[in-house]
Amino acid sequence: MSDFKQAALDYHALPTAGKIAIAITKPAETSADLSLAYSPGVAEPCREIAKNPDDVYKYTGKGNTVAVISNGTAVLGLGNLGPMASKPVMEGKALLFKRFADINSFDIEVTHKTPEEFINTVAAIADSFGGINLEDIKAPECFIIEKALNERCKIPVFHDDQHGTAIVTAAAMINALEIQNKKIEQADIVCLGAGAAAIACMELLIQCGAMREKIYMLDTKGVIHTRRDDLSEYKTRFANNTDKRTLDDVIEGADVFIGVSGPNLLSTDQLKKMADNPVVFACSNPDPEIKPELAHSVRSDLIMATGRSDYPNQVNNVLCFPFIFRGALDVRARKINNEMKIAAVHAIRELAKQDVPESVLKASNEKELSFGKGYIIPRPMDPRLCKNVALAVAKAAVDSGVAALPLPDGYMNEI
Amino acid sequence: MSDFKQAALDYHALPTAGKIAIAITKPAETSADLSLAYSPGVAEPCREIAKNPDDVYKYTGKGNTVAVISNGTAVLGLGNLGPMASKPVMEGKALLFKRFADINSFDIEVTHKTPEEFINTVAAIADSFGGINLEDIKAPECFIIEKALNERCKIPVFHDDQHGTAIVTAAAMINALEIQNKKIEQADIVCLGAGAAAIACMELLIQCGAMREKIYMLDTKGVIHTRRDDLSEYKTRFANNTDKRTLDDVIEGADVFIGVSGPNLLSTDQLKKMADNPVVFACSNPDPEIKPELAHSVRSDLIMATGRSDYPNQVNNVLCFPFIFRGALDVRARKINNEMKIAAVHAIRELAKQDVPESVLKASNEKELSFGKGYIIPRPMDPRLCKNVALAVAKAAVDSGVAALPLPDGYMNEI
Repeated sequence: MSDFKQAALDYHALPTAGKIAIAITKPAETSADLSLAYSPGVAEPCREIAKNPDDVYKYTGKGNTVAVISNGTAVLGLGNLGPMASKPVMEGKALLFKRFADINSFDIEVTHKTPEEFINTVAAIADSFGGINLEDIKAPECFIIEKALNERCKIPVFHDDQHGTAIVTAAAMINALEIQNKKIEQADIVCLGAGAAAIACMELLIQCGAMREKIYMLDTKGVIHTRRDDLSEYKTRFANNTDKRTLDDVIEGADVFIGVSGPNLLSTDQLKKMADNPVVFACSNPDPEIKPELAHSVRSDLIMATGRSDYPNQVNNVLCFPFIFRGALDVRARKINNEMKIAAVHAIRELAKQDVPESVLKASNEKELSFGKGYIIPRPMDPRLCKNVALAVAKAAVDSGVAALPLPDGYMNEI
Repeated sequence: MSDFKQAALDYHALPTAGKIAIAITKPAETSADLSLAYSPGVAEPCREIAKNPDDVYKYTGKGNTVAVISNGTAVLGLGNLGPMASKPVMEGKALLFKRFADINSFDIEVTHKTPEEFINTVAAIADSFGGINLEDIKAPECFIIEKALNERCKIPVFHDDQHGTAIVTAAAMINALEIQNKKIEQADIVCLGAGAAAIACMELLIQCGAMREKIYMLDTKGVIHTRRDDLSEYKTRFANNTDKRTLDDVIEGADVFIGVSGPNLLSTDQLKKMADNPVVFACSNPDPEIKPELAHSVRSDLIMATGRSDYPNQVNNVLCFPFIFRGALDVRARKINNEMKIAAVHAIRELAKQDVPESVLKASNEKELSFGKGYIIPRPMDPRLCKNVALAVAKAAVDSGVAALPLPDGYMNEI
């Protein structure tokens, strides 16, 4: 067993199983404390909430709690491992919510037969939380599930594998195109992969200016085009009226390659055929569609990003999900809408253009970081993310009319 | 507003809403930490669990997590307030699990129309936890729900309002009868109230030796007897073949009165008619069926208990539920069976007979406590409860064949 593998197992097993616990936030030592926390004192907030339902936000943790919910049908890149084997990922996500945005989060794994059963289960428990982060649910069920839950729940429901990935990818892509002096409206975009993340990324890029007809999406059968009759409704939206059929066909002259597929699927020959100053996001994890050192060895005009922390330009969902929920919860948004997602895109990308203070360099283990080919998005450990992204998202929620509360006075100023 | 009411509201609202939070139990500061906690390291425990499902106990918090689940249909003594208004109680229960038994617990409130919807919802999420504590669900649905969930779930499902109340009541009752020199088999028992707690208390007392035909249960229509045709299947089990119809009829010569009904429903005249050396448990909360000072003023031969912390002999579920789950989780019991419940009864009642060390007196704010009319059960703050009850319950689980693990070496010796 590799040292890293053993370290990962030990981390999860020792000295206690798992990585999150419950903490008591109020005095609970004496009988007097407990008479407030539980019977008889607890009857008072119950009565208040019964009279005024909004008081549940005043007297309970609901407003700062996000449930991480999965069925384990698409665990990381490992496939359908089932609910129990997904639990370490879900607990990890809960840990990241706490670590980055001080949101209390715990995981729930759902066992079910049909998407309807999953939807009914989550809808029935949703009021317990301030928000729901769906995770590792396979396509196309994830589209049906997220849509239905957003209709039925009064709280934000966000499928991070789709929208978190899309937001961070879009932020990085807009900056990369700017550095390469390319207009997103004119970019020829190849998207290798047609799963939930791929589809969400392309939809959001279109909202950020990309042209649907200039996107070539490929699934395992090749280019998704208008003469195919085997397409789901989700893929059909990307059916391109083209004679091109293979990656070789579409990579010729492309400005952008986005891989959300599998390891080593982009060859150096294909990379060489791309337009001048190309942008390659090889996001397959842990092994990218092309290795950065290999790619840079054949294209010096390249901007490259991956999902990995050991290369520059890591496209990592943790740049977004803790903070988009932070902003949504703080103005009690009833959903996370497109306005909020686009606000997050721009808050993330603009942060990469700001001077990087010493504290951030230190947290990121870097001597220098300045906006350019090797630094197109902020580092995950950048503590400015919370303030910038949450503030932008909260403002967008208020401005677009989905927030129950106004922006708090001096919101995020204290950070 | 009373000072206490205001203090209870402030406790829940300030400085942050609610009383529990998430804590991170492993290092999560650096990028290296996070590469173990989340991607890519988290893939390792996922793979192990996919290969060996039992490893979910090794690598995640499942084994030390209990969900507190309610639908808010019988909140404290306040009635059907709905799921949201029950949330402070459920968070309070989670706090008590952590405080008394170091079990990580959080609350889930379920919105549903039929008992089947509730059952399906809880069954679908049950694998996420090591155990489920059902709370504040009204009768008779609670009987159907608990039975169905115990059949469908692989983890213990325990309705505390029934069984926790019954266990603590039985422990106190056996001790009270012993002090009064009465045999439980010969005791005439009046039970005022026929809800979930009343029925569970009587069923457990019968398992501890009480005779079903010597129990007179009363609902709002009076004595439950064999000629009534308005009884649920649960009440029917207590239909007594008797001509007695009212509390006045059955209290005459009764050895035991147990009230799980409402305030001031037992008069001093009725109390006077009870047998010599009677036992009165007036458990209606916060106002008992008869006030202790009033009761003692007319019967000096009385043993009395209530649900209140400001009188001696508090019948309080917190004497049981944290520890019965502690024992069940530690040997990974797949249910909480009768053997475990009876083991808890005897562990609790025997602790009351032991010398009370200085530390316990201090924690209980008492100068002296010794087994007798004013001290028939341990105090809630007695730290010996965890060891004694959890050990007895874990042993009973192993001996009765519902435990997946043996008793750990030196179990509970370290406390």
